[in-house]
Amino acid sequence: MEGLFSRFFYFSRDSLMCENIPVSDIVKKTGTPVYIYSKSAILEKINQYKEAFKDYPTLICYAAKANSNISVLKIFQENGLGLDIVSGGELYRGLKAGFNPQKIVYAGVGKTDEELKQAIEAGILSFNVESLMELDVLDSIAESLGKKANVSIRINPDVNPKTHPYISTGLKKSKFGIDMEDALKAYRTASKKKNLNIVGIHCHIGSQIMDVSPYREAVEKTVELVFKLKKEGINLSHIDIGGGLGIKYRPEDSPPSPQDLAEMVIPIVKETGLKLIIEPGRSLIGEAGILVSQVLFLKDKGEKHFIIIDAGMNDLLRPAVYNAYHHILPVEKKGETVTADIVGPICETGDFFAVDREIDNVSRGDYLAVMSAGAYGFSMSSNYNSRPRAAEILVEKDSFHTVRKRETYEDLIKLEEEVM
Amino acid sequence: MEGLFSRFFYFSRDSLMCENIPVSDIVKKTGTPVYIYSKSAILEKINQYKEAFKDYPTLICYAAKANSNISVLKIFQENGLGLDIVSGGELYRGLKAGFNPQKIVYAGVGKTDEELKQAIEAGILSFNVESLMELDVLDSIAESLGKKANVSIRINPDVNPKTHPYISTGLKKSKFGIDMEDALKAYRTASKKKNLNIVGIHCHIGSQIMDVSPYREAVEKTVELVFKLKKEGINLSHIDIGGGLGIKYRPEDSPPSPQDLAEMVIPIVKETGLKLIIEPGRSLIGEAGILVSQVLFLKDKGEKHFIIIDAGMNDLLRPAVYNAYHHILPVEKKGETVTADIVGPICETGDFFAVDREIDNVSRGDYLAVMSAGAYGFSMSSNYNSRPRAAEILVEKDSFHTVRKRETYEDLIKLEEEVM
Repeated sequence: MEGLFSRFFYFSRDSLMCENIPVSDIVKKTGTPVYIYSKSAILEKINQYKEAFKDYPTLICYAAKANSNISVLKIFQENGLGLDIVSGGELYRGLKAGFNPQKIVYAGVGKTDEELKQAIEAGILSFNVESLMELDVLDSIAESLGKKANVSIRINPDVNPKTHPYISTGLKKSKFGIDMEDALKAYRTASKKKNLNIVGIHCHIGSQIMDVSPYREAVEKTVELVFKLKKEGINLSHIDIGGGLGIKYRPEDSPPSPQDLAEMVIPIVKETGLKLIIEPGRSLIGEAGILVSQVLFLKDKGEKHFIIIDAGMNDLLRPAVYNAYHHILPVEKKGETVTADIVGPICETGDFFAVDREIDNVSRGDYLAVMSAGAYGFSMSSNYNSRPRAAEILVEKDSFHTVRKRETYEDLIKLEEEVM
Repeated sequence: MEGLFSRFFYFSRDSLMCENIPVSDIVKKTGTPVYIYSKSAILEKINQYKEAFKDYPTLICYAAKANSNISVLKIFQENGLGLDIVSGGELYRGLKAGFNPQKIVYAGVGKTDEELKQAIEAGILSFNVESLMELDVLDSIAESLGKKANVSIRINPDVNPKTHPYISTGLKKSKFGIDMEDALKAYRTASKKKNLNIVGIHCHIGSQIMDVSPYREAVEKTVELVFKLKKEGINLSHIDIGGGLGIKYRPEDSPPSPQDLAEMVIPIVKETGLKLIIEPGRSLIGEAGILVSQVLFLKDKGEKHFIIIDAGMNDLLRPAVYNAYHHILPVEKKGETVTADIVGPICETGDFFAVDREIDNVSRGDYLAVMSAGAYGFSMSSNYNSRPRAAEILVEKDSFHTVRKRETYEDLIKLEEEVM
């Protein structure tokens, strides 16, 4: 079907739909720029993951950093998923969304004392510890609280996931995890700490991975270490293989499915008999969201044609930081197309959404939808150029509601006015 | 003097000072990460600009996008400067800071109807118009309000400022301004609009410019156009040459001074007799600010040594987006140095402040100061990884006060909770 991007974002006649609602109906009420998420699209991804891993004991922990809106988190919580967090703020959000702390895993190279304390007190399933120094600090904070902290060591498998360098996290030269040759030592150290319970092992090779084969090497190395630990009498409860499955940014992309991942990793993990944890983020929410923006001006400069929209790099940073491709669709189809740069209002040349893109010949006032913007969209947004952040809308079948209000000018300055 | 970065950030014995206060005294009270600005450093830059341009009628409009904290804006306002804005949010901030609208100029390729309306109603000095379509829209909105809008055309001089491509704005292929060959036509169009007053001409070639010579070509082209317009009976009041002077990011950098800029441009502008507007941003505030962060963990991975600090790319985006160099100094000097990657807590390899940097051999709990962080620091910051944004502190001589409170977890979710 021409113009079909997914079952949840598609054209009915010439109108882009989100589930059963024309996107134009939504944005006329909400204004732009606005993030719109499809709940049914999220549920479909959840079900794909559940189905793929149903025959092996697996806890699917949604990676909150992809999109941490509380209403979005609640969808994952209500469907039985756990949560992968990387900060105290994400812990706070996760608890607000109702997650059982025993389903929360906490990674990150720079956890502060206060964050460690909050998470020990909450009683989370596992701290994915990234350095020997963190082990010491965690032990001493747990001691001061009179509690025990559950730990896994994040190992660095030195595997290249073939993705953008900024989101490759499993290479030896990266800041993440503990190298394989030091991991055994880290477990021995942990096993001697009175206030730590060793519960698992963790690795994560990167993000937006379009081929599951690097997972094989990473998981094999992890399993090998599990057996070495067993020999030393260090027994684990789970193997956490992280997240990272890629999504469809271009219509022709065919990212691996949860099933592909399950078929690759379960046979390897099975040998250990340990419970499996996976941490998908982008692949659960990325394709389920779009950023809709209105065309402000058209402009011809010699050979270059510019379409200037009311969303900017403050709303969606991925093109500027990762030089990322996002597909862009008209909210109402036009007969003709043009080749244009689609750019935002921010005073930087880096503020662009597409360069030399063939796009429907839109007019001032028309709307454009930036596709696959559900992950690392709003969560990376800022107030650069003193721009209030966009509203977030959740659609379910025939209805939609606001899950985050649009910021106002008053919101921008509130914390400055309070000290004036 | 060893370790001297500026007159306002220097070492006294082994302690980094901001004006007359040890930085460690500040951060022990405020916590980290924290932005600290020196008011005296800002005043010194203001005075350098005033002195350099004192013999020619010049309005210095501070570019709010560099740092739009209201208390910072007030310093510029109280010292007689005007304001260069790029959004309705910046207009709102500028008016809060007490700027006379007749000293406000407004550029930007994507001004919304609402923003245009607000600025017409405020009665700003000049809309720096970036497209023919914007002229039409501005005229019709002014008409609907029964007011006249003051306009300048932003021309694109097609000059290469030799800086990062993202902040080169005067190249023909960029989205900014109107090409020279179309500018005359734009002025003719504007002169026929009943609700527009033509007041000036605007150009801006880029940012972080380390050699003033590209200004010569840009200003010469602009002046040439001024004379062409005069022949057609289109008389202007001012020439706005934009901003863009670079600052010292590395200790060995020697950026051009306001004096260098004045000596380059005034002789050219003088021929027209028109008033001059300049729009410095980074060069007024950049070196006047630092980002201070605490060391959380140290980590050795083979040959790589990592210093993990509690500030991240959400606090300072410049290294990730522009691969920018920021000098980093210890808040308390250590005897020895190490070579390390200085990285943040965010779960991306792009979250780094320095790679293979020689730095004092700091310990857990020590503080590091990221220098020259006053511009495009806080203003580009985000809540990525659900991290509350840093506090901002203004120092003057022996005292300091908070000019923006640190965000709390409650602040992060406020706009989500209100719709739940």
